[in-house]
Amino acid sequence: MDPWINAPKTNETENSNLSSPLDAFQEPHRSLLKGLGPVKKDLLTAARNKIDNKTKPVGSLGRMEELAVQLCLIQEDLNPVIRRKSMFVFAGDHGVVEEGVSAYPSEVTGQMVKNFLEGGAAINVLCRHGGIDLRIVDMGVAAEIQRHPLLMEKKIRKGTRNFARTPAMTTQEALQALEGGMEAFLTEYRTNPIDIVGLGDMGIGNTTAATAVICAACGVDPLDITGRGTGIDDAALTHKAEVIQKALRRHDPDPKNGFDILQKVGGFEIAGIAGAALAAAAKKTVVVLDGVISTAGGLVASLIHPHVRDYFISGHRSVEPAQQAALAFMNLSPLVDLNMRLGEGTGAALAIHLAEAAAKIMQEMASFEDAGVSRETA
Amino acid sequence: MDPWINAPKTNETENSNLSSPLDAFQEPHRSLLKGLGPVKKDLLTAARNKIDNKTKPVGSLGRMEELAVQLCLIQEDLNPVIRRKSMFVFAGDHGVVEEGVSAYPSEVTGQMVKNFLEGGAAINVLCRHGGIDLRIVDMGVAAEIQRHPLLMEKKIRKGTRNFARTPAMTTQEALQALEGGMEAFLTEYRTNPIDIVGLGDMGIGNTTAATAVICAACGVDPLDITGRGTGIDDAALTHKAEVIQKALRRHDPDPKNGFDILQKVGGFEIAGIAGAALAAAAKKTVVVLDGVISTAGGLVASLIHPHVRDYFISGHRSVEPAQQAALAFMNLSPLVDLNMRLGEGTGAALAIHLAEAAAKIMQEMASFEDAGVSRETA
Repeated sequence: MDPWINAPKTNETENSNLSSPLDAFQEPHRSLLKGLGPVKKDLLTAARNKIDNKTKPVGSLGRMEELAVQLCLIQEDLNPVIRRKSMFVFAGDHGVVEEGVSAYPSEVTGQMVKNFLEGGAAINVLCRHGGIDLRIVDMGVAAEIQRHPLLMEKKIRKGTRNFARTPAMTTQEALQALEGGMEAFLTEYRTNPIDIVGLGDMGIGNTTAATAVICAACGVDPLDITGRGTGIDDAALTHKAEVIQKALRRHDPDPKNGFDILQKVGGFEIAGIAGAALAAAAKKTVVVLDGVISTAGGLVASLIHPHVRDYFISGHRSVEPAQQAALAFMNLSPLVDLNMRLGEGTGAALAIHLAEAAAKIMQEMASFEDAGVSRETA
Repeated sequence: MDPWINAPKTNETENSNLSSPLDAFQEPHRSLLKGLGPVKKDLLTAARNKIDNKTKPVGSLGRMEELAVQLCLIQEDLNPVIRRKSMFVFAGDHGVVEEGVSAYPSEVTGQMVKNFLEGGAAINVLCRHGGIDLRIVDMGVAAEIQRHPLLMEKKIRKGTRNFARTPAMTTQEALQALEGGMEAFLTEYRTNPIDIVGLGDMGIGNTTAATAVICAACGVDPLDITGRGTGIDDAALTHKAEVIQKALRRHDPDPKNGFDILQKVGGFEIAGIAGAALAAAAKKTVVVLDGVISTAGGLVASLIHPHVRDYFISGHRSVEPAQQAALAFMNLSPLVDLNMRLGEGTGAALAIHLAEAAAKIMQEMASFEDAGVSRETA
């Protein structure tokens, strides 16, 4: 019920240890991230009192009330406002596709990026529907992508290396991808501040990478939480879990080190999502995670900087089982559960409508006093 | 997964028995309802093929795909469109409040109607947010309500009678309330056709009436499914369940007869919702049910005319346990689950955004062929 009571605690000792991962970032990103603090709880009581005084039985708007309070704390304002809504779809290819872990060929990543740019994909429809600005970020698509007004070019490399054999990326590439994600967000933010951002993904093979990241961070066995991604059969599912299991044994990433996990078994789009989440939180923008890939990106971000989690909303529950492990690790609970498993930011896009509704409830609804409505007799 | 396979079957024998309840209605309502058929399944295969050819893994949009197909069948068109969205909040008072079943006094019904008319309630905020036209229908509020452009006046009586002692309404009043609900919908529909309608409620004491209706129709013991409504304590909860149990024993409504249940233990707003649901389905308008009261209204409508169920979407899962019994009875599954229990149509308003998104997915998303995207290799 109460995310502010149950949220993972960060103590001063942990804070003082933050200096090392953040020192890897270039300026001005380093300073920006060093300024990222937890949301202040000063307004917590006032925000709760305000929502409790709205003309409705106490608590009767359920999770919408929690959302409204979270928005107040993030924006440090009892009248939270969602003006600009943005969605970034980070795209990248995966060397591990060589291992036969996906039902689709890698070419589909580039084809779908083209589809995004032409406006024909599900995320285009849902962003138009929700009044959400959409940008596509090429973090590492194997195909050449032509310039386009919606495209942001941050390509690190034409796909990661096959992490069944070798680390997915170099340390330098991992950092560059994180900074690319930050810069994608910040570039848009500078043109016009963003109040809420959805972080989506496209990349054939990326449920394999995301599951590996989540297993590494949360200490879970891939055989327990690997899912079917775009739709593989039972035999391929077992194979996929074994590929992840072997890779984790081979590379042995440090479960507390987001960089290390990302570099060894991650993906460029996962890094982009993590970077964008870090930059957004530093700008006090509400971050809406999507399915398993996006949640893996959020998890990497939260390992790099624990305070980022205060700014997170989980948009929807994915069919992919690994997402649940990552959400539990971050103590997040998804808003929407529609049996979806598409990614692209589609679940986040639907959830943004709910977050905006929560802000308006806090801002526009009358209090008992305003409306002259009697209170409980009990 | 598939509402069209699992939907309750109605056979010819049942259809031929429909004549008697519908004959009670006045013209033109009687003819309208006699023309209400099940949704035609002619387009089912074509609609499924169309959604399966969209650029996404088959089934990856989960319940959004089922919704999209349902919209095609209701509108008899592979390009369903949601132009006008409407919400009706039916309000009425309840004699059973004398028994001490609510945490709020009856005056709150009229006060909240005033709040709706002034734009300050949660449903106002959510309708503005979702671009949904809102009308408030006075079906039987105890207070005098002043005329207002948003108000539709269908008052049957200043509250129902206390059904702990006597039937809630006369047979004539029950019919008049059903027809009032139909006429409220049809009046708005005539000014401009409505593609999707949410049906909300306001009425102190109405979870007691709704629970009684659901127990009567579904054959469930009130002690098992009575909830806290606006927020009563344990002792009051037991008392409330016992009040319902005794009333059902006293009046012994026929579980297959929607009129009989409504008249003995229903409410004027529940009747209004049932009438509006019937009229909307007859006009091929998608009907979005809200919480336990609205679902009870839908249940009454489905007893009067089983085909109405084909046009229903359950907007959200209420905290009230009786709603689940009614949904199971109708084989409906809610779209949103946000721990809400406010009523007013608030859950339906949020779900309307999802239904509209589903229509746009069917209409606007590119196919694999259009977008030149490769299919599964498996």
